[in-house]
Amino acid sequence: MSGIADVARMAGVSKSTASRALTGSGYVSESTRRRVVDAATTLGYVASTSAVSLATGRTQNVGVLMPYLTQWFYAEVLEGIQEALLSRDLDLTLYVARPGTSGRERIFEHFLTRRRFDGLIVVGLEPADHELQRLVSLGRPLVSIVGPGEDGTSLIEIDDAHAARRATDHLIALGHRHIAFLGGGDDDLRAHVDQRRLQGYRDSMTAAGLAAEIRHVPSPPSMPGGYAAAVDLLGDSMSRPTAVIGTCDEAAIGAIIAARRLGIRVPTDLSVIGIDDHENAEMFGLTTLKQVPWEQGAAAVELLLSRMQSADTPHTAVRLRARLVMRSSTAPPSGADSAIELDSPLVDEDRLTDA
Amino acid sequence: MSGIADVARMAGVSKSTASRALTGSGYVSESTRRRVVDAATTLGYVASTSAVSLATGRTQNVGVLMPYLTQWFYAEVLEGIQEALLSRDLDLTLYVARPGTSGRERIFEHFLTRRRFDGLIVVGLEPADHELQRLVSLGRPLVSIVGPGEDGTSLIEIDDAHAARRATDHLIALGHRHIAFLGGGDDDLRAHVDQRRLQGYRDSMTAAGLAAEIRHVPSPPSMPGGYAAAVDLLGDSMSRPTAVIGTCDEAAIGAIIAARRLGIRVPTDLSVIGIDDHENAEMFGLTTLKQVPWEQGAAAVELLLSRMQSADTPHTAVRLRARLVMRSSTAPPSGADSAIELDSPLVDEDRLTDA
Repeated sequence: MSGIADVARMAGVSKSTASRALTGSGYVSESTRRRVVDAATTLGYVASTSAVSLATGRTQNVGVLMPYLTQWFYAEVLEGIQEALLSRDLDLTLYVARPGTSGRERIFEHFLTRRRFDGLIVVGLEPADHELQRLVSLGRPLVSIVGPGEDGTSLIEIDDAHAARRATDHLIALGHRHIAFLGGGDDDLRAHVDQRRLQGYRDSMTAAGLAAEIRHVPSPPSMPGGYAAAVDLLGDSMSRPTAVIGTCDEAAIGAIIAARRLGIRVPTDLSVIGIDDHENAEMFGLTTLKQVPWEQGAAAVELLLSRMQSADTPHTAVRLRARLVMRSSTAPPSGADSAIELDSPLVDEDRLTDA
Repeated sequence: MSGIADVARMAGVSKSTASRALTGSGYVSESTRRRVVDAATTLGYVASTSAVSLATGRTQNVGVLMPYLTQWFYAEVLEGIQEALLSRDLDLTLYVARPGTSGRERIFEHFLTRRRFDGLIVVGLEPADHELQRLVSLGRPLVSIVGPGEDGTSLIEIDDAHAARRATDHLIALGHRHIAFLGGGDDDLRAHVDQRRLQGYRDSMTAAGLAAEIRHVPSPPSMPGGYAAAVDLLGDSMSRPTAVIGTCDEAAIGAIIAARRLGIRVPTDLSVIGIDDHENAEMFGLTTLKQVPWEQGAAAVELLLSRMQSADTPHTAVRLRARLVMRSSTAPPSGADSAIELDSPLVDEDRLTDA
């Protein structure tokens, strides 16, 4: 087997330069790096990262732990994390811990305990108490995206309650009173996020004197889920709301599709607003509160790296404010008094914070 | 720092049993494993996987290389791979190599060369020649999902041309002649897959004497992409086809949404068929050719493990046949001669292979 000396000789550089080029530790010019990498590849040189890890105590690797992959939010976050790690020469080890599975138990009992990472990013996990305890006991820097934020963890997430309040206030400012909240529920997989958003809706309705109008329709946070729940909700013209807030864009888009199939015009007969700015929001003209999960992933890497460089770095909780993106799915209710106070405080707030 | 002896003592087992329990190498009963893991966690024992790797030459790690994460197909495949690796006690290192980015160059020149994996699964990558050469030169077992299948690689994918022929034959059997193919194009990111599907469509049209009717409408393989292209395609009632094949379900669903917005009834005025069986296909009643990417991911792990266990294992190319799933988006063309030959060979084939 070829050694680092052979690689260095073939590339015409010193052993230490060859080592730097292959491990990514320290500066090496781009052309030199390429020459070394080509030589290493030609010679079949296996850079022993195991030996490097033993010597430095560092794995050059970051673990990412999330409950799902196939939902838009998680895939976008993971891309953001991956791209940020790539630019820092760090590997990414992925753990998908689906709730209630034996695989999740194995991850907590076996995989994480191996500590094959210098730090860990946990995304939307909603850990049970014993899981949280194990995460903390690993003694590795930890950053969460979407809770939990307690117990010495850095955190980045959007302010969910605020996003839902903004969505509700937008509809109230347009003149709506019969506003239903679509999504979330006891057996929901994203329970915490949806509960916070539901609470934001309740708070805004109550503050506007519309507590008696509060109406929560449970649904999974997906397009088919929102569609099925909205068909029920909108089917009875007597009890039909004039506006619907989706707990996420996918549920809101499901409601738009349900409305079209029932012959209900959006926004003339029904306003619909979501939260996320999902990649499909624009084609449905969906008004929504925008978050950018890709950026949350990249920001989580920065938080983690500062913790990895110095354990004294204070923990940070970053709560981002989602921004209202106006499209064509919201309008004043039909038959409403058209004398909407365009200079009311609520509308002013829209203008000031979302321009 | 605690050593393996401390862990063994606390758990009341021998050192070798404690080692087996922590590295996952060899049989240990579930209750013993839990006791050892609890002891290791309590004592803060760091199982030195680096030392294990140096001793065995194995990393206990599999690399996964894919160009995207956020598309349905890739996320589903990755979940299948992850779950299969989890059950084999193997870690997963993820590399996302977006085409045309400097990150992709870094992955090929730096990350892969570190060889921090015992084997590599490559998903829908469409590598350039020099990239393929580097992959092969790594000297690690390699399995591809969706090409390339040359040069000593095992491969698993659906037979794309066959899926498109089946979709086309289904429409022809229903009596359609004006059938357009929606999706793919020169600047398309999934060029190879879409080209194969487009060719399958061309072949079926030609075989049915409909070569003069072949009509390809380029579009990105997404719901918004299919929607925008279909609005153009369907807008002119004089040249409108009676049926559309989407290169994937997302493009096909975009076409259904476009049709609804233009007041064109599906399937009365327009039949639409897709390829994939995407998670949203059912809610749109989309007839489609079903593939299960999750299973392809799990199967790729099995292929890789057999190669990792013995380099003599012959390479395998598995091409799966997509299955027709009939829903409500396809029907005979309106105004068509209703004397469709229900016992024609094409319809019989439908029944035989898709029952």
